[in-house]
Amino acid sequence: MSAAAGSSRRPPWIIRTYAGFGDAASTNLRFRDNLARGQRGLSVAFDLPTQCGYDADAAMARGEVGRTGVSVSHLGDMRELFEGIDLATANTSMTINATAPWLYALYLALADERGVDRALLRGTTQNDMLKEFVARGTYVFEPEASFRLSRALILASVRHTPRWNPTNCCGYHLMESGATAEEEVGFALLGAIFLLDAVQGAMPRAAFEQAVSAISFFINSGIELVPEIAKVRAYSQLWPDLCEERYGVRPRFRAGCQVRSLTLTAQQPEVNIVRIALSCLPVLGSADARVGALQLPGFREALGLPDVGEQTLALRTQQVWMHETGIADFPDIFAGSHVIEKATAETIAAARAIIDAGLQRGYGATILDLSALLGRRMAGYIAAVESGERVLVGVNAFEEAVAVAKDAAPEEQPDAMAIGDARTAALAGWRASRDPEAWRTAREALIAAAREDGDVIEASVAFARAGGTTGEWTLALTEVFGARWSAPLGVDMAAKARDEVAPIALPGGRKLRVLLAKAGLDGHTNALRLLAMTLRDAGAEVVWLGPGHAPEAIAHAAVSEGVDAIGLSSLSGAHGWIAGAVRSALQDLGAPELPVLMGGIIPAEDHPALRAEGVVDIFGPGARSPEIVAAFVRAATAG
Amino acid sequence: MSAAAGSSRRPPWIIRTYAGFGDAASTNLRFRDNLARGQRGLSVAFDLPTQCGYDADAAMARGEVGRTGVSVSHLGDMRELFEGIDLATANTSMTINATAPWLYALYLALADERGVDRALLRGTTQNDMLKEFVARGTYVFEPEASFRLSRALILASVRHTPRWNPTNCCGYHLMESGATAEEEVGFALLGAIFLLDAVQGAMPRAAFEQAVSAISFFINSGIELVPEIAKVRAYSQLWPDLCEERYGVRPRFRAGCQVRSLTLTAQQPEVNIVRIALSCLPVLGSADARVGALQLPGFREALGLPDVGEQTLALRTQQVWMHETGIADFPDIFAGSHVIEKATAETIAAARAIIDAGLQRGYGATILDLSALLGRRMAGYIAAVESGERVLVGVNAFEEAVAVAKDAAPEEQPDAMAIGDARTAALAGWRASRDPEAWRTAREALIAAAREDGDVIEASVAFARAGGTTGEWTLALTEVFGARWSAPLGVDMAAKARDEVAPIALPGGRKLRVLLAKAGLDGHTNALRLLAMTLRDAGAEVVWLGPGHAPEAIAHAAVSEGVDAIGLSSLSGAHGWIAGAVRSALQDLGAPELPVLMGGIIPAEDHPALRAEGVVDIFGPGARSPEIVAAFVRAATAG
Repeated sequence: MSAAAGSSRRPPWIIRTYAGFGDAASTNLRFRDNLARGQRGLSVAFDLPTQCGYDADAAMARGEVGRTGVSVSHLGDMRELFEGIDLATANTSMTINATAPWLYALYLALADERGVDRALLRGTTQNDMLKEFVARGTYVFEPEASFRLSRALILASVRHTPRWNPTNCCGYHLMESGATAEEEVGFALLGAIFLLDAVQGAMPRAAFEQAVSAISFFINSGIELVPEIAKVRAYSQLWPDLCEERYGVRPRFRAGCQVRSLTLTAQQPEVNIVRIALSCLPVLGSADARVGALQLPGFREALGLPDVGEQTLALRTQQVWMHETGIADFPDIFAGSHVIEKATAETIAAARAIIDAGLQRGYGATILDLSALLGRRMAGYIAAVESGERVLVGVNAFEEAVAVAKDAAPEEQPDAMAIGDARTAALAGWRASRDPEAWRTAREALIAAAREDGDVIEASVAFARAGGTTGEWTLALTEVFGARWSAPLGVDMAAKARDEVAPIALPGGRKLRVLLAKAGLDGHTNALRLLAMTLRDAGAEVVWLGPGHAPEAIAHAAVSEGVDAIGLSSLSGAHGWIAGAVRSALQDLGAPELPVLMGGIIPAEDHPALRAEGVVDIFGPGARSPEIVAAFVRAATAG
Repeated sequence: MSAAAGSSRRPPWIIRTYAGFGDAASTNLRFRDNLARGQRGLSVAFDLPTQCGYDADAAMARGEVGRTGVSVSHLGDMRELFEGIDLATANTSMTINATAPWLYALYLALADERGVDRALLRGTTQNDMLKEFVARGTYVFEPEASFRLSRALILASVRHTPRWNPTNCCGYHLMESGATAEEEVGFALLGAIFLLDAVQGAMPRAAFEQAVSAISFFINSGIELVPEIAKVRAYSQLWPDLCEERYGVRPRFRAGCQVRSLTLTAQQPEVNIVRIALSCLPVLGSADARVGALQLPGFREALGLPDVGEQTLALRTQQVWMHETGIADFPDIFAGSHVIEKATAETIAAARAIIDAGLQRGYGATILDLSALLGRRMAGYIAAVESGERVLVGVNAFEEAVAVAKDAAPEEQPDAMAIGDARTAALAGWRASRDPEAWRTAREALIAAAREDGDVIEASVAFARAGGTTGEWTLALTEVFGARWSAPLGVDMAAKARDEVAPIALPGGRKLRVLLAKAGLDGHTNALRLLAMTLRDAGAEVVWLGPGHAPEAIAHAAVSEGVDAIGLSSLSGAHGWIAGAVRSALQDLGAPELPVLMGGIIPAEDHPALRAEGVVDIFGPGARSPEIVAAFVRAATAG
């Protein structure tokens, strides 16, 4: 048996571990700890207000500050985040999209004031708006404006920070939202091509070649082994081919990966340990198409943030793959496989057709098309699981519990209200300490740059230096790009799911009227959109507010629209605060009895507190449509 | 993406679940329950006394009756075991070797008295003595006599029960004892060829062709993916080729499989969930070489019998493979793979060399050769783990606990002492009720058949009908085949492990003198043999008793040999009884202070009781040689 290489080489892939949460100071401590252990890669997760362009003291940020990542409002926060860290040697990966140009500008401003040559800066900004519009929901401006900002970031990055990856195109979220393997490849590569096409004319040839090579990807790996193996191979073969055909450059396909959460189950969570382990095969098995970095979810992912044990087991899973399976000692085990080569060729052909069609349709139309497609796919997936056509072990088959795992250790949730209060006070101090005239000048220069399609990034750096904040940057740009974007419900999602739901019959033939909304900034709307269509199919009237609303606004809309019940979705962990705020707003409006139902990722231990806030029903990821619709009918007729 | 077949076909492999324990009546209840659910396959595990040819009332059976399976001493037990079950439609798999001819004869006798046509009987007797001599240890007679009995069973089976699989050749135990993948294939197929060569001349051509097709295998699947994938493919290609070349028959390779226990760890047992899931790939991934049936261990296998949760998770693991990975919907995913085809060809070539050499050496010499080889391999494996050359996650690397699993549910151990007492009384009744003259005649006929190489199976059926018992059958045959076989310690096992152990220095330059033994019938001697060699290498004198001794005999040997300490190994679960019996025998012999150390699979909750019996140290599967040797030195110098 011949092994390809000895054991003293560098690791065959990077094991990414969970990024964690907290404020700038605690994140900085973790970074310094990692650096002390020899890790050069720093991964920054931001809280939803920062992702959506709100300052920590904005009303919309209430209850979300520091919850899903660090809150960064200005250069002072950036200084604290990278205190004691040499930007010339660090490699900083920022999961940031709509406000990526701003966070990148803050990073440049920090490097400038420390005297670090920009050309030395290494890192990544995710900067992929396509998947935000169709799947993830943390957009700020309308699609064309968002695209212009992404483009500006790439242009600036190629010019000033040649070692930076300005964009990480995410196929991941597409399959997470129901796309097929072929669709993931097609739309992820299409998104990258849109951006490259848009920058190609604006830079010299050598810089453009570098821009092509700087594009990296973030992909999804799942349990359907053959199509997933074919998918990863298709990605890694098609991307160089496309770039060669279109741009005359042949880059290597570089990708990070996370295992799909969609097919992990809240029921019998121990079975997810098996699913996660097997889902690594597609992205680790093919030496020629192996991902550069892999991150695994906790096996109780559907139930909440991973505790230490879950994080350790996720790490051990990769360690077994790396050190015990021997997979890294051999060349590609699927090269030559008749089945895999055939499936790969089919995936490539289907992805090419998607790319060709998308290039005909253009960026804006692609967002509409893909959004509609994902809606249908998700509805189809859920219907297939509900009907049992797709077997999901422990969900629609083999339902006897496994029950070998201990209860999860209690989550150490950051106290988002306290962090928000502290940061609100600090922000007031920050604003008071800056030079108002310099700030005003920089703000006007930023607006002018955006209006005239000038160098928005450099203007943002200047605004950062003048003390500008995340919310102020966003607000300044709305003067050019228009108000915040809000996506319509739109498309027909419930292709098959409706078979299962009986028509709703209220006393007296009256129609059930339901308001569906997400408070705050959490943009996960797949389940809520599906519920909206299912309710409509069953004959209810749905008032669709969608994501991004203040609790007061939700209560106000519900009362003025005269709905029978309110459905709130929360996946960000802010459910407790949201329920309380909506309830209190309803009381203020004289409608304390209006029933509220909640869904999302809500740990069982929080249910009593929510019920005390008057929430009449709570649904988790395993809930089925008929059950939820029945609960709305019950709530509407109980009063 | 093209799928090979629809979803309404028969399952792509059989999911075997844990066989369970108990007496004939409770096993019968489980069988009838399985049959009521539509299962046709019944799997019988026997207790060690039955496997080793002892009746339930034998002194050597003490503490072992009904412990690892059902106790069957005579035709009355067989009647009870199959009460209410139609032998004409059942498919009965018996994990039995040294006494396989006797258990098969009991089954025939039962069919005869029920008027069931023998030609309808379907099932399997394991009947593979090669792996008993080299790895598992439940032999009774010397090798050539054992081989003659195996051959007799095949001849009878081909003649009387054409639908029966008389032999299931076990590669499994070879890799479990340290063999490489190539060695597993080579020696497992060699064992089958020895048997077929021996029966070829003794039957008509058509019957022989059927005998070739009736041979099935039981193989091992492990975590080293490429060599293991190649191994399964090598098995399935080489077996038909060999049979065609040697016998002009081309049988299909038919195999059951269990995931290797050797590489599962007692440390961080949750990681075994991952290992077990990944170890399925080699035997499920290749459609052309997929095993017919697969059984998975519990993830705490190294710590004791699986509880219900572990059994359920093992079942779920296979259900995810079968229903979620989609692997069964596609043709062979490794056919054509350059890496796998090359590794398979290399495995086939190496296995062929082993087979050729083995056929030159013959059956008896092969047992000696293989026994020595496995000793070296196991020592090498342990040394590689102890030195860290082979990474075992959680054992020699990444030692921080995972700790997500609850403690195992307390085992429902059968009360072997109570079962033994009850069966002892019942056996007296059985013997009193039979016709002594008919019994004596049948016994003499059995001895004559064995002596004259006549039809031992038919003579055994007659002896069964006359009321003969398992122990009496064995004793009768020892008159022809000689006394029970006991294997010498023999070979040099400690090739590399000895580097780690410092020479033992007792006060005054005196030599440490240790007795090593296993009480009762548990034949797992790998660890104990390795310890013996390690102690010798470090300068100790080892009195090697090995397996198969009464506690009284062990105590007697220890006192008469004047040892400093006794080392007892137990993997059968009988440790509590053994410790007590040895201690009490030592007291009777006036040596109550002689220290006893124990090793094996001994649950932590049993440690206090053992310490109360005077056991001074207890070692599990994770214990390292230097640690054990140090404990012997401590015990020897403490008095």
